[in-house]
Amino acid sequence: MVQYMQTRFDASFAALADPTRRGILEQLARADASITELAGKFRMTLTGMKKHIGVLERARLVSTEKIGRVRTCRLGLRQLEEEAAWIEGYRQLWDARFNELDKIVEELKQREKAHGRQKRGK
Amino acid sequence: MVQYMQTRFDASFAALADPTRRGILEQLARADASITELAGKFRMTLTGMKKHIGVLERARLVSTEKIGRVRTCRLGLRQLEEEAAWIEGYRQLWDARFNELDKIVEELKQREKAHGRQKRGK
Repeated sequence: MVQYMQTRFDASFAALADPTRRGILEQLARADASITELAGKFRMTLTGMKKHIGVLERARLVSTEKIGRVRTCRLGLRQLEEEAAWIEGYRQLWDARFNELDKIVEELKQREKAHGRQKRGK
Repeated sequence: MVQYMQTRFDASFAALADPTRRGILEQLARADASITELAGKFRMTLTGMKKHIGVLERARLVSTEKIGRVRTCRLGLRQLEEEAAWIEGYRQLWDARFNELDKIVEELKQREKAHGRQKRGK
């Protein structure tokens, strides 16, 4: 299960690591579109667009259906729920880590102060 | 600005598209570590670990500092805030899109029903 999840994360984050692919997802969230339409909108060759759609399909972020000669693309069933959860978990760890570091710096400052008072007291 | 954001997203999502790199972030959220320690923990060569750290550094998710012979890695200042926001925005678009499709299916069903009643009424 964990392994499966890891592979899925690899595929989805890699799919998101490209501005055209993020643009395709935003576009398909507005309306289904054929590969030809998408290629036109993103000023790209059909071959280039097919490659991007392939990456998005493998990550299950897009599904396609061929009716006659036209391949229609629509949003896949994956909603990036787990990816959002992973990032949220990381953000919490990050906060905890930086709060911890802040505390250490604060303690060092206090010690420095106390040390300064001791010195002046001598 | 938009272009800058896009490039940043490319780098951060690509950095997240690997289980070792996600593991390194989780590890550094617990404590700073040297490249040698990380290589040991992830059972990897120093060269392999340096490459991963390089990817994370370019995405500004990790920062490193060399003191003497040891390069210490710590979490970078980026907290994946914008990435979380992008995914959240996408999830909302996704919801809206699927609600819209649900409505269309519901309307088609209602029409079908009405049509059936008309037919039976004849």
